Amino acid sequence: MKKRVGVAILGLGVVGGGTYRTLVDHREFYLKTQNVDIVVESVLDKNTARLKELGVPEECIAGSIAEVVANPAIDIVIETIGGVGVAKEFVMMALKEGKSVVTANKEMISKCSHELERIAKRNSCGLYYEASCVGGVPIIRTLLDGVQANHVLEMMGIVNGTTNYILTKMTQDGTDYQTALKEAQALGYAEFDPTNDVEGFDSTYKLSILSSMAFHTKVPYTKVHREGISSVKVEDITIGKEFGYTLKLLAIGKNTPSGIDVRVHPTFIPDAHPLASVNDAYNAVYLRGDALDDIMLYGKGAGAFPTASAVVSDVIYAATHSEIKYSTFKNNATADSDVKFVTDFSSAYYIRLSVDDQAGVLAKISSIFAKYGISIVEIAQKSKNAGEERVPLIIITHKTHENAMKNAVAKINASDMAAVEAVIRVEA
Amino acid sequence: MKKRVGVAILGLGVVGGGTYRTLVDHREFYLKTQNVDIVVESVLDKNTARLKELGVPEECIAGSIAEVVANPAIDIVIETIGGVGVAKEFVMMALKEGKSVVTANKEMISKCSHELERIAKRNSCGLYYEASCVGGVPIIRTLLDGVQANHVLEMMGIVNGTTNYILTKMTQDGTDYQTALKEAQALGYAEFDPTNDVEGFDSTYKLSILSSMAFHTKVPYTKVHREGISSVKVEDITIGKEFGYTLKLLAIGKNTPSGIDVRVHPTFIPDAHPLASVNDAYNAVYLRGDALDDIMLYGKGAGAFPTASAVVSDVIYAATHSEIKYSTFKNNATADSDVKFVTDFSSAYYIRLSVDDQAGVLAKISSIFAKYGISIVEIAQKSKNAGEERVPLIIITHKTHENAMKNAVAKINASDMAAVEAVIRVEA
Repeated sequence: MKKRVGVAILGLGVVGGGTYRTLVDHREFYLKTQNVDIVVESVLDKNTARLKELGVPEECIAGSIAEVVANPAIDIVIETIGGVGVAKEFVMMALKEGKSVVTANKEMISKCSHELERIAKRNSCGLYYEASCVGGVPIIRTLLDGVQANHVLEMMGIVNGTTNYILTKMTQDGTDYQTALKEAQALGYAEFDPTNDVEGFDSTYKLSILSSMAFHTKVPYTKVHREGISSVKVEDITIGKEFGYTLKLLAIGKNTPSGIDVRVHPTFIPDAHPLASVNDAYNAVYLRGDALDDIMLYGKGAGAFPTASAVVSDVIYAATHSEIKYSTFKNNATADSDVKFVTDFSSAYYIRLSVDDQAGVLAKISSIFAKYGISIVEIAQKSKNAGEERVPLIIITHKTHENAMKNAVAKINASDMAAVEAVIRVEA
Repeated sequence: MKKRVGVAILGLGVVGGGTYRTLVDHREFYLKTQNVDIVVESVLDKNTARLKELGVPEECIAGSIAEVVANPAIDIVIETIGGVGVAKEFVMMALKEGKSVVTANKEMISKCSHELERIAKRNSCGLYYEASCVGGVPIIRTLLDGVQANHVLEMMGIVNGTTNYILTKMTQDGTDYQTALKEAQALGYAEFDPTNDVEGFDSTYKLSILSSMAFHTKVPYTKVHREGISSVKVEDITIGKEFGYTLKLLAIGKNTPSGIDVRVHPTFIPDAHPLASVNDAYNAVYLRGDALDDIMLYGKGAGAFPTASAVVSDVIYAATHSEIKYSTFKNNATADSDVKFVTDFSSAYYIRLSVDDQAGVLAKISSIFAKYGISIVEIAQKSKNAGEERVPLIIITHKTHENAMKNAVAKINASDMAAVEAVIRVEA
């Protein structure tokens, strides 16, 4: 009854190395608990020092991708190279040879899942990518096989550890963005060029993958409204706290009557929200379903072994289930042209202005908001900062449209009595 | 390509009713997103008012279980009766006719899964019970298909909403146990006879199910050390707060070198622990895997629709996967006789004593702890309560063995200088 499954690993970086070690160290365990003997047949990486460090036996080192895909002993190919170039080329070669693919590559899946899933389907093999989102947390398995009885109404995720670490430092220690970023870089949480993380690209890829599954349609990452954290001021985090809010970089997906609303931006959430206490490099996805109500999955969003856990869980799933999971395309849908996306989304807002310290200013600002149909929940005037002439004024609004808010902000900035210093969206 | 699946629902109580409505209301949705047409063929319940209230059509009302199991149009039987009597009898009849069973029945699964899984296997059908634990939260799917790459090292769960509601009230409002229980009863969170919840039986059933899966062996509920919350004093919750601890009724499972350690008892955890902010009727399971590190799943632990979400997700899983999941027995293991269980477990402790207000008492108590090898982390003497002669003394210990602690407590109680008023275990 034991099933033998041969795997190849392409790329022995952090995740590939963790995957190799996990598979080798747990072979007996999987044989015992899963009835499947998972054998690493082949490893492809040019870095001989790394191959040695991981103890890969000589006979398992592949000379080329051609050798890997031609090997009949290999059933599943694990791609841990990253990016869209070579990785995509190799994955396509594997799928075309009828080998199922397990990948941790969020950029490739976000950009090319349509194309890759079609090739997989044509060749009767599977494409699995649990590890592309939120490390070891089984969010994709949950969407596919755990909450599939629900219309998913909305999801909000902290899906990038680097930015969550930086925002946590800014919140807890009052350090500014640049200092917190440097700390994150020193600890290896942020890369030398942090753009991909701090400007929200990484979160955008993940949101496009997760919302495609949650909403049963393809959500291209280009449809995601994206703002990063590089212009977040610690001053706003501190003031937000006084209002009972915590600032997080959220990946938000909502299935609304007017279309799919997907966005990544710094967001204030109430301190009591389960996402508010997800700190440091931890990630979490909070979602609401129509039957389920709300759930949250929480865990390490990155790292060699947490991500390897997701890769290997997919390998076991692929090895023990004959049904192939075409994730977003179970129903063979190909035409997504009729899917609507929200462009002018709705949100509540936190706005910090600096205003002239004189009578009548508040009335004028209020009238601008009123003109654009924006209703105000709370106004607080703060004491003047040392050396500044203008007074900080904080406004929290009810839900309104993004465009109305943009117009109101432009109008205020065009006046000579006040300037908008910060606009941060608020989710409940 | 569309697959037609007929289901029967046995018992239209809270969960059965929610399941019926979910299946009927989502039929088109499942057809579109899951490629499967799930048809409620038959419903068995004697309560005609309830059948009418839910709008069950005449032709779907079954006259007897015999009629249900004889119906070839029924592929899957959903059991939402509860308990071990009739429910088990009906489930066995369905399995023997080769019908897969989906159940929300934690008591039956905890007590009889061995027997039922054997019958299921003999008849090539499946037995699914996601809904037996933690409502709509897909903890069983996660253990089976999401984190199966890991040795699960430990799990800690808040798996009973009633007791979590009561403890949250005691913590936040300082109400005593009896008052909080009455509130919970008034809100429908606690039953008229609350024993099953407040004495930890419900948590014990769930822990036996979850730890069986997590540790790949049968963990009988009778092996679980069980203590409820009925003797918890609000005084200890308040003092615990001063030490940075939150009190929760935890279901704890650990896979230790000396055996499986399973217990349900009131437990102090640090305020910063993710489980500490799981309040009211919410549930959560926190677990650590050897690759994964730590994750937590959080959500509504009960209620008609959250539980129906789990039932229906199992139905869809059963309908779309030909592989049958014998949960704890994938490896055909039947002999569990070699599984060791820890009886004298280890824990850190919070101890509240009332001691004579005189010199030398502290030295004597310290020497008793020392005698039993119990090492003290922190001692705090509180001010005397009004009208009392003795002084409250709080001791927090390092990890020690339960039996050592019991002996020390007995020794102190046998003395005439002090009495132990409360002993609460502490987990980090």
